[in-house]
This record gives sequence, C-alpha cells and structure tokens, in this order.
Amino acid sequence: MLDIIRDTIESIQPVPPLRLQNAQAHLDSLTKPPGSLGLLEEMAKKYSAIRDTDHPCINKKSVIVFAADHGVTEEGISAYPAEVTPQMVQNFLNGGAAINVLARQQNADVLVVDIGVNHRFTPHPDLLDRKIAFGTRNMAKESAMTRAEAEESITIGIQMAAQLAESGVDLLATGEMGIGNTTASSAIFSVLGGLSVAEVTGRGTGIDDKTLTRKISVIQHALEKHSPDPDDPIDILTKVGGFEIGGIMGLLLGAAAKNIPVVIDGLISSAGASLAIKLNPSVKDYIFPSHRSVEPGQEVFFNLIEAPPLFDLKMRLGEGTGAVLAFGLIDAAVKIYSEMATFQSAGISDRAQA
Amino acid sequence: MLDIIRDTIESIQPVPPLRLQNAQAHLDSLTKPPGSLGLLEEMAKKYSAIRDTDHPCINKKSVIVFAADHGVTEEGISAYPAEVTPQMVQNFLNGGAAINVLARQQNADVLVVDIGVNHRFTPHPDLLDRKIAFGTRNMAKESAMTRAEAEESITIGIQMAAQLAESGVDLLATGEMGIGNTTASSAIFSVLGGLSVAEVTGRGTGIDDKTLTRKISVIQHALEKHSPDPDDPIDILTKVGGFEIGGIMGLLLGAAAKNIPVVIDGLISSAGASLAIKLNPSVKDYIFPSHRSVEPGQEVFFNLIEAPPLFDLKMRLGEGTGAVLAFGLIDAAVKIYSEMATFQSAGISDRAQA
Repeated sequence: MLDIIRDTIESIQPVPPLRLQNAQAHLDSLTKPPGSLGLLEEMAKKYSAIRDTDHPCINKKSVIVFAADHGVTEEGISAYPAEVTPQMVQNFLNGGAAINVLARQQNADVLVVDIGVNHRFTPHPDLLDRKIAFGTRNMAKESAMTRAEAEESITIGIQMAAQLAESGVDLLATGEMGIGNTTASSAIFSVLGGLSVAEVTGRGTGIDDKTLTRKISVIQHALEKHSPDPDDPIDILTKVGGFEIGGIMGLLLGAAAKNIPVVIDGLISSAGASLAIKLNPSVKDYIFPSHRSVEPGQEVFFNLIEAPPLFDLKMRLGEGTGAVLAFGLIDAAVKIYSEMATFQSAGISDRAQA
Repeated sequence: MLDIIRDTIESIQPVPPLRLQNAQAHLDSLTKPPGSLGLLEEMAKKYSAIRDTDHPCINKKSVIVFAADHGVTEEGISAYPAEVTPQMVQNFLNGGAAINVLARQQNADVLVVDIGVNHRFTPHPDLLDRKIAFGTRNMAKESAMTRAEAEESITIGIQMAAQLAESGVDLLATGEMGIGNTTASSAIFSVLGGLSVAEVTGRGTGIDDKTLTRKISVIQHALEKHSPDPDDPIDILTKVGGFEIGGIMGLLLGAAAKNIPVVIDGLISSAGASLAIKLNPSVKDYIFPSHRSVEPGQEVFFNLIEAPPLFDLKMRLGEGTGAVLAFGLIDAAVKIYSEMATFQSAGISDRAQA
C-alpha cells in the first residue's frame, strides 16, 4: 500500500464521546422539549463534535464530482451510451445539470474531477484533470484496473481532501458521474454484503427487464472470474470498482483525517464510503448519510453505518444531488445549535415546573 | 355557516390535469433520466401547476404561527404548564425559537397570530391580534368552543390567506403553538379516522406513561360526552378542537381559493388540514405534506391526502418547524424545473440513441 494511504488510514481518530455529550447538554438547554427536533439534534451534535467547537457554523461547502468511464459498458448494461459521461461533465461545467442547480441553491461550490473519463476536455477552472486512464477495463473480461491504479485513485481523493481542508471548507459532499457505475457499485455491495448479485442490483438510469438480467449476469460472471477478497477493500476496488469510486474512498479517508464532515450521496458514493469504512471503521464518525436511493444495494451501506437515511425522495440520479439537498438540513441543524434561545435566556418555564 | 366560509369553500377548484401534464413534459426534457429526481419532480410539477406558470419561482415565503390556549390543560395532560404558550409566543417575537432559526435559514417571514392565548401581549409588528377568547373551554367538561367561535377562527384564517395573497406570497407554511393542542388534535383524528383514541394519541411534548393514560381517558370521555359528527368538520372543531386549528383550516381554504400552495407541518397542522379537506376535497391539490411527526394520529392525514411525507426526522416540536424545513426541498424542486438544461440545449445523447 502507498505510504500516503497507510498514513492517512492510521491518522483517523474516533470522535471523542465527551464532545458528543457536551453538545447534547447544550441542545437540551434550548427552548424546546428535549429531543423534540429528532435527527436535526443528532446532526447538530455530530457536526459540532467533529469540528470540536461550541459555535458551529457552515460557511464553505463543496460537492466533489468524480467522473470516470467504465469498460463494462461494452456489455450493454446501461440505458445511456458511454459518451454521455463526457457530455454530462460538460453540462456540469456549463452549470446546467441538476447538481449545479442544487449547489447554487445551497451556495455550494461544484468541483468536477476527471479521474478517468474517455475524453480529452478543454481546460476549465472548475475541472480538475487527474485522469488515471480513459476509463476502466471491462470487468467481464479482465480486472477493472491494476492495483497501482486503484491506489492512485484513492490517493487523488486523499490529496483533494487535504487541499480542501487547506482552503477552509466546512462541509463536503460526494458526487459522481460515470455511465456504467451502478454496475461497479452493485458488484462491490454484493461482495461487501455477502449478498447475491440479484439482491443488490437495480435499474440504474432506467434499464428494462432484459438489460437488468444481462447486468446481473455480467456482474455474477465478473465476481466469479476475479473472486475479490471481501476483507481487502482495495482488491474489490481493483477488480470490479471504478476510478470515481476510488476517488470517493480517498476523499472520505482524507476528510476524516482532517476532521471535515462529508455527506454521502446515493449508490455509488455509498459504495465508496463502505469501502473506506472497511479500511478504517472510524470513518463512520465523519460521514452523514443523505437520501435513500431507489437502488437496493445501498442497504448494505446503511447497515454498515448503523444510521438511517435522512430522507427518501425516490431519487436515482447521482451526481451528488441527494447529498447537496441534505446540506440544507445539516445547515438547519447547525443553526438550531448556534442560534436558538435557552430556557434560561428566554425566561420560559421548563417541564420541571409543570 | 358564515357566507365568507361557504363562498370560499365553493370557490376552490381542482388543479387542472392538463397543467400537470404540461409540467411533466417539461421535466422530461431536462438533462436527467426521466423521473430520476423522484418526489422532487412531483413537487415541481405540483407547484408550477398550482401557480399556472412555466417559470415557477418562489420569492416570498411565510410561516403563519397560530397560537392559542386550551382549557383541557386543567386536566393535567401536558408535560409543560399552560403559561408556556404566551412565553413561547414571546420567544417567537424575540426571534429565539426553533421556528425563527429555521425561517431565517429559508429567508421566510414568521407571522404570529394570537387567535386565543390566555395572555394580553404588548403590540409587536410580527404579532397579529385576532384573539377570539383567552383559550378554549375544557372539552372534558363542555364544548371547547361555540359554533360561532369555531366559524370565527376559520374566518380569521381565510382573511389572513386573502391578505397574504394580496401581498404576493408564493408559498405558505402552517405553524402553531398551544400547550394542550396534541390532545385536541388526537381527538379530531380519532373522529376523522374512525380509530380508537389510544391508536391516535401520542406523548406530545414528552409525557410519561401515567399522563398518557390520563390524556387518552380525557379524550375518550370528551368524545363520548359530545359525540362530534364525523361528517361535520365544523362540529368536530367546535366540540374538541382549538382556535389555532380553526385558523389553520381557514388559512388552507383561503389559500386554495387563491392558488397559493401551503406546506403542512406536524400533528396539529395535519388535523387542521384534514378538517379543511373534509370541507372541500380539492384543498388536497394545494397542499404539500412535509414531515412525518412522531405522533401516531398524523397517519389519518397521510391516508386522506394519499401522499407520503417528504421526510421523517423523528421531530415532534410543531411551531411549523417541519414545514419550514420542507421549504428548502420545494424551492430546490422549483429551481430544478426552472434552471436545468434540456437534452437539446446541452447537446446530450438521450436514451433513444443508446
């Protein structure tokens, strides 16, 4: 394993329980029945404990959209042609995609990382060129990438987290674009969850029954051919993953090492998060789930983090859209923590007097 | 029935299906797989159809917090003393309550209506004095209000909706404050849902087992004593309701008549909404559910509107907090509708070419 990956994994510490207790005590002093804001209070507590502050405030928010292509698309497992990956990257750069609209609403930056798209892009200020290759290889025929490439993708994510920490970011979201990447993610969840491929595989961007059957069969074949080691997340990434999934893994490791909370989007982000958690379970302390996607494989992630999604809007778009929607809820939670009056300051009778 | 109430009920029209179809056609032209934004698309469609515009935009948002006291509190059914109602109203006016924090985050106004609080307030620009009485009567002993008072509370809501329409509001939320009002709401849901009191009664602000047993018994006794007519929403409001619940009913009737969408908060708002829907089922076309509260009675409302809540954050605070959180999601949905690129404008391959 590359030194940067090993050092980062080793530097991640659990969030101290005392910080969580202190945050809870503050929340209980606010003018509301204890616990009556439910998961908003849980989010506020977690955020302020991660950031180790009594005055949490979210100023700088960014969503990192890792884009990459997948060799397995030549098996005909997607509703859209592979050229949609670079076309959508261009759409992100032009500000016309769903993630741009939602990020603007949340006053968040969108940073697009070409970590392996099958296209040469014209340079753009919002596009980071960290291309490893012009897409992965076809997992149905060979390993999706080499172990060196897998480690390179993780390293890119770690380096980005370090740069973002340097720039003073308060909250991150994971996003991705890559035609074929629900196939890679379902393969990962089958291995991590010890579940059949049929149980964890969904319709992605909207494939028909025949294509779904083929998708399941292609994943089954790839898993039988390569036998990824369930206890070696980098082996899983290497054999059936994607460059964007490695980037997400690395971003989470790097962010946890720098005490930066990260919101996890849908299936693909959850796959990257699950692999990162397997490398160090304390990563869980730094991540916020967002939505429950329509894709069934994501259940493996929720089981792993032992936390429910914040909402279920039947979304299945990816890009980071669910995670950025959750920015609004986390920001609300943090403002509750920082801005509400206490029973004492407002002169309100507490239940003890009832 | 007062003319203003009858006229308003009669003037509410269903939202024309053609408007919904046109909105769906626009959503399907945007750069995302059809339907992949799930309920966000449903919200965008509903909002633009209500407002009858191809360019929906939410500028002016308000949450209307109806505050009133409840005579039934003398039965000892709440975790907090009744004087908390005026204390919390003062907290709203000082900007220190949860609803203030969340409304500021959403750039929404908070308008507090004293529709029946047991306190004389000093005038304040954000407080509307529409006091009907210093609280309802104790439903355990007599009807909570007279039918004339019930109609007055509904009229106040209708008049407020008209004023807000005049001021150019784009989106409303219902909120409330009133120690004892989960007791009134549970009674309403027992009648409307044809369910036992135990099935629809929860712990409100956090009562213990003994108080919960008493609360259920008090409601059962009141329903047996008064036998509200399940087919006469105003009779239900009169006998076991609250002034704030009548205000919410009226606000919804008035808003629907003026094509203004309203977001419904938790248990108490859902009780008011359910009664309004019973007066004219087309009210459903103008309301957005927000969160699933911890209170069990709210299920009757979700069954009535045949729509799921947007999120379940285990909240049970009221004030309008869940509804105002939903403002962010509805605004996101509307921005998706108005700001995203189309496949054609972005030059992206549609699935037909796959």
